Amino acid sequence: MQEFSKFPTKTGRRSLSRSISQSSTDSYSSAASYTDSSDDEVSPREKQQTNSKGSSNFCVKNIKQAEFGRREIEIAEQDMSALISLRKRAQGEKPLAGAKIVGCTHITAQTAVLIETLCALGAQCRWSACNIYSTQNEVAAALAEAGVAVFAWKGESEDDFWWCIDRCVNMDGWQANMILDDGGDLTHWVYKKYPNVFKKIRGIVEESVTGVHRLYQLSKAGKLCVPAMNVNDSVTKQKFDNLYCCRESILDGLKRTTDVMFGGKQVVVCGYGEVGKGCCAALKALGAIVNITEIDPICALQACMDGFRVVKLNEVIRQVDVVITCTGNKNVVTREHLDRMKNSCIVCNMGHSNTEIDVTSLRTPELTWERVRSQVDHVIWPDGKRVVLLAEGRLLNLSCSTVPTFVLSITATTQALALIELYNAPEGRYKQDVYLLPKKMGETRPHETTLEKLFLKIILFCFILFFF
Amino acid sequence: MQEFSKFPTKTGRRSLSRSISQSSTDSYSSAASYTDSSDDEVSPREKQQTNSKGSSNFCVKNIKQAEFGRREIEIAEQDMSALISLRKRAQGEKPLAGAKIVGCTHITAQTAVLIETLCALGAQCRWSACNIYSTQNEVAAALAEAGVAVFAWKGESEDDFWWCIDRCVNMDGWQANMILDDGGDLTHWVYKKYPNVFKKIRGIVEESVTGVHRLYQLSKAGKLCVPAMNVNDSVTKQKFDNLYCCRESILDGLKRTTDVMFGGKQVVVCGYGEVGKGCCAALKALGAIVNITEIDPICALQACMDGFRVVKLNEVIRQVDVVITCTGNKNVVTREHLDRMKNSCIVCNMGHSNTEIDVTSLRTPELTWERVRSQVDHVIWPDGKRVVLLAEGRLLNLSCSTVPTFVLSITATTQALALIELYNAPEGRYKQDVYLLPKKMGETRPHETTLEKLFLKIILFCFILFFF
Amino acid sequence: MQEFSKFPTKTGRRSLSRSISQSSTDSYSSAASYTDSSDDEVSPREKQQTNSKGSSNFCVKNIKQAEFGRREIEIAEQDMSALISLRKRAQGEKPLAGAKIVGCTHITAQTAVLIETLCALGAQCRWSACNIYSTQNEVAAALAEAGVAVFAWKGESEDDFWWCIDRCVNMDGWQANMILDDGGDLTHWVYKKYPNVFKKIRGIVEESVTGVHRLYQLSKAGKLCVPAMNVNDSVTKQKFDNLYCCRESILDGLKRTTDVMFGGKQVVVCGYGEVGKGCCAALKALGAIVNITEIDPICALQACMDGFRVVKLNEVIRQVDVVITCTGNKNVVTREHLDRMKNSCIVCNMGHSNTEIDVTSLRTPELTWERVRSQVDHVIWPDGKRVVLLAEGRLLNLSCSTVPTFVLSITATTQALALIELYNAPEGRYKQDVYLLPKKMGETRPHETTLEKLFLKIILFCFILFFF
Amino acid sequence: MQEFSKFPTKTGRRSLSRSISQSSTDSYSSAASYTDSSDDEVSPREKQQTNSKGSSNFCVKNIKQAEFGRREIEIAEQDMSALISLRKRAQGEKPLAGAKIVGCTHITAQTAVLIETLCALGAQCRWSACNIYSTQNEVAAALAEAGVAVFAWKGESEDDFWWCIDRCVNMDGWQANMILDDGGDLTHWVYKKYPNVFKKIRGIVEESVTGVHRLYQLSKAGKLCVPAMNVNDSVTKQKFDNLYCCRESILDGLKRTTDVMFGGKQVVVCGYGEVGKGCCAALKALGAIVNITEIDPICALQACMDGFRVVKLNEVIRQVDVVITCTGNKNVVTREHLDRMKNSCIVCNMGHSNTEIDVTSLRTPELTWERVRSQVDHVIWPDGKRVVLLAEGRLLNLSCSTVPTFVLSITATTQALALIELYNAPEGRYKQDVYLLPKKMGETRPHETTLEKLFLKIILFCFILFFF
Repeated sequence: MQEFSKFPTKTGRRSLSRSISQSSTDSYSSAASYTDSSDDEVSPREKQQTNSKGSSNFCVKNIKQAEFGRREIEIAEQDMSALISLRKRAQGEKPLAGAKIVGCTHITAQTAVLIETLCALGAQCRWSACNIYSTQNEVAAALAEAGVAVFAWKGESEDDFWWCIDRCVNMDGWQANMILDDGGDLTHWVYKKYPNVFKKIRGIVEESVTGVHRLYQLSKAGKLCVPAMNVNDSVTKQKFDNLYCCRESILDGLKRTTDVMFGGKQVVVCGYGEVGKGCCAALKALGAIVNITEIDPICALQACMDGFRVVKLNEVIRQVDVVITCTGNKNVVTREHLDRMKNSCIVCNMGHSNTEIDVTSLRTPELTWERVRSQVDHVIWPDGKRVVLLAEGRLLNLSCSTVPTFVLSITATTQALALIELYNAPEGRYKQDVYLLPKKMGETRPHETTLEKLFLKIILFCFILFFF
Repeated sequence: MQEFSKFPTKTGRRSLSRSISQSSTDSYSSAASYTDSSDDEVSPREKQQTNSKGSSNFCVKNIKQAEFGRREIEIAEQDMSALISLRKRAQGEKPLAGAKIVGCTHITAQTAVLIETLCALGAQCRWSACNIYSTQNEVAAALAEAGVAVFAWKGESEDDFWWCIDRCVNMDGWQANMILDDGGDLTHWVYKKYPNVFKKIRGIVEESVTGVHRLYQLSKAGKLCVPAMNVNDSVTKQKFDNLYCCRESILDGLKRTTDVMFGGKQVVVCGYGEVGKGCCAALKALGAIVNITEIDPICALQACMDGFRVVKLNEVIRQVDVVITCTGNKNVVTREHLDRMKNSCIVCNMGHSNTEIDVTSLRTPELTWERVRSQVDHVIWPDGKRVVLLAEGRLLNLSCSTVPTFVLSITATTQALALIELYNAPEGRYKQDVYLLPKKMGETRPHETTLEKLFLKIILFCFILFFF
Repeated sequence: MQEFSKFPTKTGRRSLSRSISQSSTDSYSSAASYTDSSDDEVSPREKQQTNSKGSSNFCVKNIKQAEFGRREIEIAEQDMSALISLRKRAQGEKPLAGAKIVGCTHITAQTAVLIETLCALGAQCRWSACNIYSTQNEVAAALAEAGVAVFAWKGESEDDFWWCIDRCVNMDGWQANMILDDGGDLTHWVYKKYPNVFKKIRGIVEESVTGVHRLYQLSKAGKLCVPAMNVNDSVTKQKFDNLYCCRESILDGLKRTTDVMFGGKQVVVCGYGEVGKGCCAALKALGAIVNITEIDPICALQACMDGFRVVKLNEVIRQVDVVITCTGNKNVVTREHLDRMKNSCIVCNMGHSNTEIDVTSLRTPELTWERVRSQVDHVIWPDGKRVVLLAEGRLLNLSCSTVPTFVLSITATTQALALIELYNAPEGRYKQDVYLLPKKMGETRPHETTLEKLFLKIILFCFILFFF
Repeated sequence: MQEFSKFPTKTGRRSLSRSISQSSTDSYSSAASYTDSSDDEVSPREKQQTNSKGSSNFCVKNIKQAEFGRREIEIAEQDMSALISLRKRAQGEKPLAGAKIVGCTHITAQTAVLIETLCALGAQCRWSACNIYSTQNEVAAALAEAGVAVFAWKGESEDDFWWCIDRCVNMDGWQANMILDDGGDLTHWVYKKYPNVFKKIRGIVEESVTGVHRLYQLSKAGKLCVPAMNVNDSVTKQKFDNLYCCRESILDGLKRTTDVMFGGKQVVVCGYGEVGKGCCAALKALGAIVNITEIDPICALQACMDGFRVVKLNEVIRQVDVVITCTGNKNVVTREHLDRMKNSCIVCNMGHSNTEIDVTSLRTPELTWERVRSQVDHVIWPDGKRVVLLAEGRLLNLSCSTVPTFVLSITATTQALALIELYNAPEGRYKQDVYLLPKKMGETRPHETTLEKLFLKIILFCFILFFF
C-alpha cells in the first residue's frame, strides 16, 4: 500500500500550504464542522462496510452517517435548481448513457448533487477526493449509500489519497471514458499508470488553474491525446467569485467571527477592484462609513464617483473600527499601521494572498496573542490595546464564511454541460487541445464560435431559471 | 431546598413558553453553544468549588471554564466602549461606593462587562440569572473567578432558580441597597421574603416590560416604597431593537441557517413597520428583489416611495424564493400560501409573535418534516416539494442570529447610569414611583425634566464615543 | 375702486416678504416663467374680453393665451390621477350638485385641475388668486375659456387683489355656500363684508397655517358660525413636503442653477431632520460624499447609523464643494465659515427660513457680488475666491426647483374630498369649529373617529391608484 | 464669399441630421438658450465691431454681450479645476510658447476656458466653430473682448462656416503649427487649401470619431504627414459619458421636461449596459420601482444580481409610468407597445440612436400630436389616452439636460495635455500616424508605453485635485 506515497506529486505541498493557487478552492463548507473528528481512529481502508443494499463498492469514514449526509445534499439541492432542472430535462434522453466517469473533486454536498445528476443522465461514476481535508464524511456516506463508488474521507494520508484515486480507475471490467478533475492529480495518475485507458478517454473536464497548467504542459510536449476543457475560468465565474460573493461574504465573515454591528462603524477598505467594490457596497448599505485606499487611478476614480472617500491608510488608521484588505499586494497593513490602530480594531483580509497583512511582524515578544474563538485572535499590546485579527490574515471569505450553493451551482452546471458536450461532440469538433471558456466578454451577444455557443448555453441554463 | 419551587411565579411558564413578551429577551448569544452540555450531571449546588483565590462565594457549573469565559468577556468589551469609558471616568470618584447591588439578569458576556463596571465604580454585587436556560456557564465561571458572587448555570431547575436568587439576597452581614432586575422575579422575592430589606432599598432598575408591569401593580396597591426605573423602553432602544438590528440580523439569520445567496433572489416581506423597513433595506442593498405586503396605508405609502413593489401575498407567493413576516399579526402566512410556494422557498418570521406563520397547519400527516440542521426544517409535500422553515416560525433574529454587543451595550450603559442616578439622587428627586425614560421623542432637543436630562446624558454617553 | 386697498390685511406684508409661514406656499411653478411679462400695460380690469362662447364673466390678463394654458393643464392632469379618477367615479352622482363654491388659491395648472374637477362633480365655481404674483396667466385664460368665472392675473396691485375677491363673492342671483381658501383673505372678506352670506356657508376648507390661525381666532371669539377644515397639515403632507420632495428637489435645484456633477463631490448637510434625510439620501445615491452636522443627539445617531460622518462644520468647511443648510436655525453658516470656504464652493438653503445662511454678512464693501444667472450669485473675495450663493440664501426648493404635480395632487384631492364631506355631512357631524386632519399617526391602522376615517379615505384615494 | 459652400463636406448633412455619430457631441449647453435669437438680422460678417482695446481681429454676433459671456466662463471655471491648476503650474514655463494653434470646436463656456488656458501657457490661438448652431454668442464675444481671434456665431450658414475656418487659417504673417479639431473639417480645409501649412503642422489633436476616421483614411492613403491624436476615446471618457453622466442626466432630463416625481413610479429601462446601469442606479435610489429588459445574458445577470426584475417589455408595458430606452438597437419600443401604454406614460431615449423608439409609427392620422413644452409632445389616441414623448425620441441627455462642466473638463484637460505633449515631444516619439489613448484598461497600473504614460498623467491631473 505504501507504494502510493512514492508517486511524486503536489499533494504533500498542498496539504501543507493549502494555497488557493493550486486547487480550485480550499474553502470548506461550514457543514464540514459537523464532521465528528473525535471518531474512532481505525482507517477506513481497514473497515468492512456495506450499504443497505449490500454493496461494499466504496470506502468512506462511516456509512452510518449517510442519513445526515442526505440532509446536507437535500439542502444543497434547494439552491441548485439549474442542475435539478438539467436532471429533469435530460433524464429521458440520457445524454450520458454509456459514459464512465472517474472524478476527483472536493466531496461536498454540492458536488454530490453534481455526481447524482451525472448518474441520473445515464453515467456510471467512480469518485475520489482532490484534497485530503475537504471531504464531508457524511456526504461521502450518503453517496455510498446511494450506490456511488466513492473513495474519500476527511483526513486522508498522502498514501490514502493515491490509493483512493487508484481504486476509482483500477477496476476489473470497467474502463473510464471521461475524466472530471480538480487539480490534475487524477488525470496525471491515469496518464502515468494507465496509458491505455488514457488514450481512450473522450474528454477531460478540469476545474482548476493548476490542472489546466499541467494539461498545457502535456499538450506542449505533444502528449495530450484527449480534448480538455477548463470550465472554471469564465467571466461569469469571475464576477461571482469576486463581486457578488464578496458582497455577501464580507458581512457573513465579520458577523460570524465578531458579531460586530455594521451600522455607524468607520471602515477602511484597501483596494477597490472587484472584491473591494463588493465589500464596500455591502458595508455602505448597512450603514458603515467606508473609506478607501487605492493606488490605481482608474479604480480610485471609480471609488470617488461611487461616493467613497479616497484616503491614505495613514490618515485614517487611528480612527477606524475595521480594516479590510483586498489589494492583492503584500504588506498593505504593516506593523506600523497595526501599532497605531485603536483598541478593538478588527483587521481582516479579503484579497488574494495571505500576505496583505504583515502578520509575521506581530509575532514579537512584547505582544500577547489570545485565541478567543475559532479564527479570532486578540493581539494585545503592552498598554492593553487589543487588535482583533481574523483568520490570522488568511482569506476571511474562505476561512470564516461559506460559499453560497448558488455559486457552486454555476460551476457544477458548467461541468455537467461540458461533459455532455465532450461526450456527444461529433468527431473533429474538439481536437487534442485545452479549451478555455471565454475569460472576458464584452457585454454584447456572444459570437459564433463553438465555445461561445457552449458558454451562452451554460449561462442561459444557470440563470434562465433564476431570472424568471 | 424544594421549598423554592412552591413559590407561585411565572418561572414555570417562562421556561415552557420562552415568550419574549415576558422577559426582556430570550435571545441566547451564539456563544451559548460553546457551553458543554454533555457535562457531568452533578448539580452545581452539590459541587464544592473554589476560585484561584480560595473563595467559594459563588455557585456555577464549572469554575475551570473561567479562562474561556474571560475571553468572551474580553470580546464583548471591544464593542462596549461606553461602559469601559464610564469605568475609566468614574473610577476615581467611585460613584457607587457603598452600593450593595443584587442583580438578576441573563448571565452573558455583555452583562459580565456591566457587572464588572459596577464593581469598578465601587459597588459590591451579588448576581443570579433571570432565565433558567440563558446563562453562559463560562462567563459565570469567569465572574466567579474574578470574585463576583454569582449563582447561575445553564439548565437550572425551577427550584434552582429561586435558590440562586435567595443566595444573592440572603447573606449574613451584607444587606442589599440597590436592585437591578430583569423580569421582576428578584424584586418580588425581596419584597415578599425580605420586606425589611426591601424598605431600605434606594432604587430599583428594571429592564423588562413584565417587570415594570409588576412594579406598577405594587405601586397601585400602595406597596411600592422605592423609586424604580424602567431603563429599557426608550426611543433609542426601540430604534435599535427594530430598525438597526433587524437590518443586520435578517442577513445574519438567513445566512447562518441556509447559506442562501441574496443577490437576485425574489423576496416578499410582509409588513413595512420598523422591522420590515430594516429587513427590506438590507435585502435590497444586497441585490434581492423585494416585494412588500402592507395593509396600513401610511406604511404602504412609505414602501412605495422607498421603491418597493406593494403587492398582495397571493399575487407573488408562487414566484418568491424567500418569505419574511414582520407584521405583528397572526396567520399572515397560511397553509394555503404554504401549499402554493415553490420548491425550496424559505419561510421565516422576524415579527413579534410566533404565530405569524401558521406552523400548526403544517403538522398534518401528508406532510413530512425533516430537521436538516439546527433551526432548519424541510417540510415536504407529497409531490416532493420542500419548504424550508426556519426556527419553526419563531423569531429568526432571536433564534438564529446574535444581538450585536453594541446594542446590548446601550441597555447596559443605561442601567449603570440609572443605578448611579438613583443611588446618588438627592432626597426627593425621585418618589416611590415607576419612572419610564421617554418612549417617544420628537427629533428636537430634549426638554428639561429630570428624566429627559438623564436620557440625554445616556445618549451622549453611549454615542458620543461612537460618533467621534 | 381704490376702496379695496383700505381693507387692513396681510396682503401687503405677504407681497413684500413672501414668507412661506403665511401662505400655503409661495412656490411658483416653473411654468410661471412662460408668462409673458413684457405684455401691454393695460390693466385687465380695463380690458373688454370675451371667451369663444361669448361670455365675459371673468377677468384675466389675456384670454388669447387660453390654448397654451390648456396644454399646461393637460400636462398637470397626467400626474393627478387621483383627481381624474374622482372626477370619473363621482361624475354620475354629482356629489357637489348645488354647491356654489368661491375659491381663493394660487392659480396654477394644478389648481385648475382641481377647479375643473369640482365643476365636473356638479359645483359652480368663482375663483380668485391668493397671491398677487403667483397666477399663471395662461392657465387663468384657459379656465376662463372653459367657462369658469376666474378673476386673477400675475402682478395684481393690492387694490386689484381685493377687487378680484369681491367679484367672486358679490354677484347678483348667485350666493356662495362653500368656501375654499388659502390664507384666509377670502374668508375674512366674506365674514366682514357679507355677513349674511357667511352665515349660510356650509363649510370652509382652508389650506394654510395662517388661515387656520385666523379661523381659530374667530372661533375663540365665538364668531365662527361655520365648520372649517384644515386639509393641509396632515402627516402625509408633511412627509411629502419634507422627506420625499426634498430628496428630489435638492438634485433638481442644484442642477438647474449650477449644472454641477454630483458624483465625487464633497458635501456637508447641516441638519438631519426630515429635510436633511431627504437631501442626504439623494446625494449619497448619486455618488456624493456626504458629511452631516447635527446637534440633536437622536438625529445625529440616525445619521451615524445611516452611514454618514457626523462632523462639526468647522472641521470640514475648508474641503467641501457644497454646503446645504436644513436646520431651521439662524446663522448656521456664518461669515467666518464663508471666509474659509474654498473657491467655487456652492452654498444653499433647504431649511425653513431664509436666515440659515448669514447672507447679510456678505454685503460688505470688500466683497463683490456678481449675478451670473437667475438665482445664482458669485460672491468674490479680494483674493479672487468665489463662493456660489444660490437664491440669495432663500429656499432652494421653492426658488430653483418645482414641486412635483403629484405632491400638489395630494393636497388638491384632499381639498376636493373635504368639500364633498362638508357639503354632504349630515347635520351635527361637524360643529362650528376648526378641524385638523391627523398631524401625527402611529404607523397603525387609523382609529374610528370621523376625521380619521376621512383621512384614511383620502390616503386610499390618493395612493391606491398609485400603488396598484 | 459663396465659394466656401462649394466645398464638398459633411457640414450640410450635419446641420440637418445633428447626428451624434459625426461630431464629438451635439449637446448644447443649457446656457445656449440665453442667446438672444430675436437679435437683428444683420450678418456678423457685415458688421464692424471692435473690442474695448480697439482690436477687430474677430467676428462674433455682438461684442457687447462680452460681459455676460464672461460670467458664463467664470461659472465654468468653477468646475474645471484641473485646467485652472494646469494654467497655474505651467504658466511660468510657458510650454506652449511659440505654438500657433488653429482650433475648430463647439464655442461654449467650457471650451473658452480651454482656449484661455492655452493662451496662458504661451500659445497664440485662432478659433472657429465646428457646428453652425452650437456657438454661445456671449462666450464668443467674451473671447473676442479678451483678445482671442474668434470667428463664430450661432446660426451660421454653410458658407459662413467655411468662411470662419478660413479666416482662422489664412492670415498674413501668422502660420499655424498646431491643429485642435472636432469633426475634421478644419483639418481637411488646411490639408486641401493650404498644403504648405499642413506639412509644417507639428501635431493634430482630434476629438471626434468622424475626425479620426478621416485621419485614418488620409493615413492609409499615405497622405498624413503629421502625428495625430484622438483624445476623446479613452476608457475614462467612456465611463463618464455613459455610466456617471447618465446617472445624473436621466434625472435632470426627466425633471426639466416633465417635473415628474420619481418616488414610487414604475419604470422600465430597456438595456442594462453602462447607460442603463447609470439610469437604473439613479432611479432606484430615488424610490422608483425599476424593471429591466435585456437580451444579453451577461447584462441580464448583472441586472438580476443588482436587484432589478428582468422582464419582457410586453409583460410590463401596461403598468409602467416611464419607459426609457438604452439598448443601441432599433425599434425597441414599437407602435404596438405604444398602443398598450397607459395614459400619461412618459417615453424617452437615452441610447445611441434616435431610432430606439419607433416615432415614425406615431405619425398617423388617428393620433394627434400636441407640443406642450419645448421637447415635450403629447401624442393623443382617439380614446383620449396621452403618451408623453420626450425630444421626439432623440437623446434625452443631449436634448433636455446639460453635460456637467466637470465632464467636459476631462476632455479639455486631455486636449491641452495632448497639445503640450505633441508640441514638445522629441523628434521620433510620434510618427505620422493616428494615436488613440487606451480604450480599455484593465484595472491595473498602466504599463510603460508612451501613450499609457500620457494617459496616466491625464488621469492624475484631472482627478488628483478632485480626490484630495
